[in-house]
Amino acid sequence: IEAADARTVEALAADLHEADVGDIIEALSADERVPFIQLLGEHFDFTALTEVDETVRVQLIEELSPEEVAEGVRELDSDDAVYILEDLDDEDQEEILAKLPAVDRMALRRSLDFPEETAGRRMQTDFIAVPPFWTAGQTIDYLRDQKDLPEEFYEVFVIDPGFRFLGAVALNRLLRAPRPTRMADIMNDERQRVLATDDQEDVARMFERYNLVSAAVVDEAERLVGVITVDDVVDVIQAEAEEDIRALAGVGDEEISDSVFYTLRTRWVWLLFNLLTAFLASSVIGMFSGSISKMVALAVLMPIVASMGGNAATQTMTVTVRALATRDLDAHNVWRIFGRELSVGLLNGGSFALIVGLAAALWFQDPLLGGVIGAAMIVNLLSAATAGILIPLAFERLDIDPAVASGVFVTMVTDVVGFLAFLGLASWILLG
Amino acid sequence: IEAADARTVEALAADLHEADVGDIIEALSADERVPFIQLLGEHFDFTALTEVDETVRVQLIEELSPEEVAEGVRELDSDDAVYILEDLDDEDQEEILAKLPAVDRMALRRSLDFPEETAGRRMQTDFIAVPPFWTAGQTIDYLRDQKDLPEEFYEVFVIDPGFRFLGAVALNRLLRAPRPTRMADIMNDERQRVLATDDQEDVARMFERYNLVSAAVVDEAERLVGVITVDDVVDVIQAEAEEDIRALAGVGDEEISDSVFYTLRTRWVWLLFNLLTAFLASSVIGMFSGSISKMVALAVLMPIVASMGGNAATQTMTVTVRALATRDLDAHNVWRIFGRELSVGLLNGGSFALIVGLAAALWFQDPLLGGVIGAAMIVNLLSAATAGILIPLAFERLDIDPAVASGVFVTMVTDVVGFLAFLGLASWILLG
Repeated sequence: IEAADARTVEALAADLHEADVGDIIEALSADERVPFIQLLGEHFDFTALTEVDETVRVQLIEELSPEEVAEGVRELDSDDAVYILEDLDDEDQEEILAKLPAVDRMALRRSLDFPEETAGRRMQTDFIAVPPFWTAGQTIDYLRDQKDLPEEFYEVFVIDPGFRFLGAVALNRLLRAPRPTRMADIMNDERQRVLATDDQEDVARMFERYNLVSAAVVDEAERLVGVITVDDVVDVIQAEAEEDIRALAGVGDEEISDSVFYTLRTRWVWLLFNLLTAFLASSVIGMFSGSISKMVALAVLMPIVASMGGNAATQTMTVTVRALATRDLDAHNVWRIFGRELSVGLLNGGSFALIVGLAAALWFQDPLLGGVIGAAMIVNLLSAATAGILIPLAFERLDIDPAVASGVFVTMVTDVVGFLAFLGLASWILLG
Repeated sequence: IEAADARTVEALAADLHEADVGDIIEALSADERVPFIQLLGEHFDFTALTEVDETVRVQLIEELSPEEVAEGVRELDSDDAVYILEDLDDEDQEEILAKLPAVDRMALRRSLDFPEETAGRRMQTDFIAVPPFWTAGQTIDYLRDQKDLPEEFYEVFVIDPGFRFLGAVALNRLLRAPRPTRMADIMNDERQRVLATDDQEDVARMFERYNLVSAAVVDEAERLVGVITVDDVVDVIQAEAEEDIRALAGVGDEEISDSVFYTLRTRWVWLLFNLLTAFLASSVIGMFSGSISKMVALAVLMPIVASMGGNAATQTMTVTVRALATRDLDAHNVWRIFGRELSVGLLNGGSFALIVGLAAALWFQDPLLGGVIGAAMIVNLLSAATAGILIPLAFERLDIDPAVASGVFVTMVTDVVGFLAFLGLASWILLG
């Protein structure tokens, strides 16, 4: 297809939604992508770039000339433009911004000045604001006359002469109000608004909680600076949940289109930490090598205790990490949840102690060995419950993301306690 | 507070958003909840019940009389009413439905007839539909006159006389159109609509992809039956990502407010499966008990190989499971991704083989033992990459949720291969 047949490609891409064009770009090989975009020329909608993986996007934009990018970015809504520019390094950003008209440049620079992952980065700077004394009819007439309106909007904002945010009028209320009604009378004055410096995760939680479709963004002086819409929030929610899944498995922020080396880098560090804890566990085993050489059955059975502890701890830890992320776990219920986890650990420990104890006793024809492994199982599942809840809580308290850091430490505890309890009890009771 | 002081409670709850009332209900102890709702009486907005955990909700509704519930449900939007009723058993549902006026009953029953987790369950049956020959002005006047409109809406639908869906007009387009414009001329006729029987996950993906705020729901004859809005979709996206996190850790659908026994039941089965694979791994070790009794260092080091394999496999598996869930992995890129994972496995395997080999050689003063553990590490990280990608793919092919089933099998492979490679090579090279 890529034989420079512009007419065909144009015809193909013109009717497609930007999300579909994004898919085409990802499906093309790396060196077909730039020619594809250049072939489309002005028919290429840069919104499509918001739909591709970050790695692909950054690479593409670095290969296009700053003029081409500036031309494309100009046509975008400001939130999409920021989304595309924010991952570039400062130098590339400046080069592209320099090619833009002053008004656009200032709006984008203002958004880019807010820290990453804040509402200021996600907001759109085009919005509709009217004074409180306007009537519904006047507002509708104004909307009919204006040509340069944002493409999609769901609310009209009401502001005072100092540009301070007073309230919002949902379009359906505006439509249903008799024409002479004053905007001040139909606006929702609960003033659900977000600060431009609010974390995007908190914004997402607010949208979800109050079922919002759009919200005003204000600066520290309560002046209206932008609007954040639910489509951006949907992406944030998706991304944040995704972040936790990845963090729990130690795969960082990699994407499926990343290269071998990028993938390697993010995963290697996690495996290295795991290696250190594995050596720690090994050194515990090493302390008991005398016992093992007297009774090889211990070596055969010991991974069972450690592995059950690790799995049980992962269960507790996952529930804790997610409950912290969704703010379902806090000071008022932490003791109740801790109690529940200990009870679950005790009951699971008890039942698996029976099963494993019986199986081990039959396998090695040694009831005492069965008793020892059963007791070690109970000890380790209780330590799993404790570690699975206390370690994420401790990281949360220290302002370290519990999803990233907990896994290594939790399995370290269950490995060490598992081997120590089983081999220690066995040495004491069976070989002491 | 619960000393039956209705006035105070009312005053407290009246100004709160339903999400906040939901939080209060969850914070109360189980036997304070029903009195709290009864105290509020008609001031209690049943929407709050959509904001509490399923366990709490079901328990509450079973304790309230069917009359009380019917009275509360009547006031709700149909999607919220369905959300509250769908988790009850058939008998309780019927009892409550029987107390409702016929019109409401029919609408709810129709939604409840659709399978769980479909668009039909999530849709709202109140919507606004007009014929194509109406003008924008006529439609606005109609909206101003109608008193019984849905509380929130973002689009007006256009239908033909047979109630078939023709297109949608976003409110901002309706507002901006000159009054004499015909609806047929401003409607978006791409007809992005969902079938009532579509899976809610597919609906969520469509909203996310095309940045929708609401979408028409049609039946198999393309007749308009409802509307699905983005706030329901946000909940679905959140729930689906959550489901995968939980499934990967083996904690099922439990919620933080669940009882010890519910929690126990969901986790126990997962631990049982893990126990079976742990015994399988133990039996592999058992095959080499002769070698271990000759050389205890093998028992000390063997968990390292298995644990690194398990962690690397979890990384690959998590990426694969999520890529399958978001449809980022399909036939056209599966070989490329498989190649990448094998390369990552080889490079990680190589570098950790060096580190572990060196450490083991120094620890036990035995260079050959270092070589053996290094070789086993490479073998196991390659098997981790293979299992981490092929096992989820196989489950997907078999229509089994890969997030639920993969974990146990993947770690089974890395445990067995890890012990087999290390102990096998050691027996052959060091002790053969």
